[in-house]
Amino acid sequence: MTNLAVVGGGVIGLSVAWRAACTGRRVTLYDPEPVRGGASWLAGGMLAPVTEAWPGEEDVLRLGEESLNRWPGFARDLRKEGVDPGLAGHGTLVVAFDSADAGYLDILAGHLHSLGRAAERLTGREAKRLEPGIGSVRSGLHVPGDLAVDNRKLLDALYAACVNHQVRFVRERVEELPDAEAVVLAAGAWTGRLHPRLAGAVRPLKGEILRLKPRRGCLPPPSHTVRAVVEGRPIYLVPRGDQELVLGATQYEAGFDQAVTARGVRELLEGAERVFPAITEYELTETAAGLRAGSRDALPYLGALDGGVFAATGHHRNGLLMAPVTADAVVAWLEGDEPPEGTAAASPARLHQKEPV
Amino acid sequence: MTNLAVVGGGVIGLSVAWRAACTGRRVTLYDPEPVRGGASWLAGGMLAPVTEAWPGEEDVLRLGEESLNRWPGFARDLRKEGVDPGLAGHGTLVVAFDSADAGYLDILAGHLHSLGRAAERLTGREAKRLEPGIGSVRSGLHVPGDLAVDNRKLLDALYAACVNHQVRFVRERVEELPDAEAVVLAAGAWTGRLHPRLAGAVRPLKGEILRLKPRRGCLPPPSHTVRAVVEGRPIYLVPRGDQELVLGATQYEAGFDQAVTARGVRELLEGAERVFPAITEYELTETAAGLRAGSRDALPYLGALDGGVFAATGHHRNGLLMAPVTADAVVAWLEGDEPPEGTAAASPARLHQKEPV
Repeated sequence: MTNLAVVGGGVIGLSVAWRAACTGRRVTLYDPEPVRGGASWLAGGMLAPVTEAWPGEEDVLRLGEESLNRWPGFARDLRKEGVDPGLAGHGTLVVAFDSADAGYLDILAGHLHSLGRAAERLTGREAKRLEPGIGSVRSGLHVPGDLAVDNRKLLDALYAACVNHQVRFVRERVEELPDAEAVVLAAGAWTGRLHPRLAGAVRPLKGEILRLKPRRGCLPPPSHTVRAVVEGRPIYLVPRGDQELVLGATQYEAGFDQAVTARGVRELLEGAERVFPAITEYELTETAAGLRAGSRDALPYLGALDGGVFAATGHHRNGLLMAPVTADAVVAWLEGDEPPEGTAAASPARLHQKEPV
Repeated sequence: MTNLAVVGGGVIGLSVAWRAACTGRRVTLYDPEPVRGGASWLAGGMLAPVTEAWPGEEDVLRLGEESLNRWPGFARDLRKEGVDPGLAGHGTLVVAFDSADAGYLDILAGHLHSLGRAAERLTGREAKRLEPGIGSVRSGLHVPGDLAVDNRKLLDALYAACVNHQVRFVRERVEELPDAEAVVLAAGAWTGRLHPRLAGAVRPLKGEILRLKPRRGCLPPPSHTVRAVVEGRPIYLVPRGDQELVLGATQYEAGFDQAVTARGVRELLEGAERVFPAITEYELTETAAGLRAGSRDALPYLGALDGGVFAATGHHRNGLLMAPVTADAVVAWLEGDEPPEGTAAASPARLHQKEPV
């Protein structure tokens, strides 16, 4: 299979197109608005499978860890293309406001240690010493190794790398599958419309995200990614290199609606003020909403659908994290090689098995 | 004086330029970004001097009432120019959450009655019958006659009327006063930089404003302007003809900073959810901040500064309301006529008297 069509120009589609083009294939990417048009442009950029993992999602964690291991090489290869994807290892501080939160941090710390990852439980005072701008917290968990990527730099870098390798961009919405030897469906929340086997299996999960900047006289942003759960809602603050702070993430089932809601903005700001009080005087520079591609079990759909058509979608909140392993999987399918560990569990074949409990 | 320079292209400058051009004068208006560049573009558009008046501001109320009386004629003349300024008489509902608020509504009702204005005190239940979307309130005050204007339609209408009358627009920032027989300074918060007698007398008063729209399935916006004080902060919701809802208004002393802050947005949304809970599911379509021109005593500066130079600035939160009386005053000065009642108190001569207590 020497020519490939990729449907979708978010982080998955661009990564697949670039890696496939590097193997000498002729790649065409279809997207009405690549790079900026989808959920990837609005992501937080945390590459932290463990602190992101939810109980019962072991397959997600395994695939996330597999992809995380590939991230440094992926970033290095991108830099060789002449563009820096903005990978940073500033680590994560997870904070607890009450005893339930603290209990969760104990479990998380145990889990990280069992994986051989460094992770340190901190008292409230120690957490405040590490990150002086945080509010009054009960305790914390410091995960020094955690990576984050500047999602916008990454997308710009992937686009440039695609251009380097003669990927052709067709800026149109795909109504029926393109004519090519192989087709990869990576259209995020919209992928369900492209193939009958994915209909109903991929659903939009709305997320709102804010960007803020310190005004003159404000405390600078935290130096770590800071995460917490405030009134039952997870929240994260991810610092960017240019003093910008990305604040997320709401998660709703709201169909294909991409409106930024009053409630979403208010809840994010309230939560963030609890975690990092100085943010109240920051400038609010951007409010946006995007649609993640949700699957039935939080694991993506990676694999063959039928003759030459492959799914690479349903990445949920893990699109940026899982881009390297997804791109490597696609190249393995095309080359007839063994696909990366953890991808077998993500096969769309599971859609025809019993529904997950 | 047959040629006139107007510095400032907000509601005051445009109104002055239009009215003066109608008298046959040759008018040049200076503004780097007329119409959209200043506070007028971000206003709520309430024309309600009484419900806006604060205790001790009798001169402001008198001038506001004088201008309010001129508003219907002003709007009619604008419509004759072929453009509708979006004047609406949907009335105001002021709501009280506690006994202190309720006491204030009693005083306001008495004041309106003493002025011969219709105003009806309502129980919480009656207020909810009038405006079913409001939250749980203790009582209300309905002011059926209150006017509001769509500030953006108004500015567009004034601009078109100026063009009809050959007003010349110079899209530059004025560094030194233009050479003309008469010069009117109407540059809002920036006017203090233009004349030594106004230096320090006009100061920026920052205000943040949000625009929202109901999403599918949402309760439509209120049919009245709804005002309240929530946790000591005044808030208003003004419905626009196109289902848009304008939400204001914060007020800070923050120099010339025009950043939208996290705190301002959060406080406005929190307050609005208390007043009109359905807003929580609305789409947040715009966040913006502008600088009102504050004076020392909330009354504008209207009158001669020195040879041929006039002040028409410092309108505080009353720029839209007072545009008609201000424009009529300028024309009277130029023609040597008696200026409108209430304008004498606004003379900049008071700047050289004792500071107000």
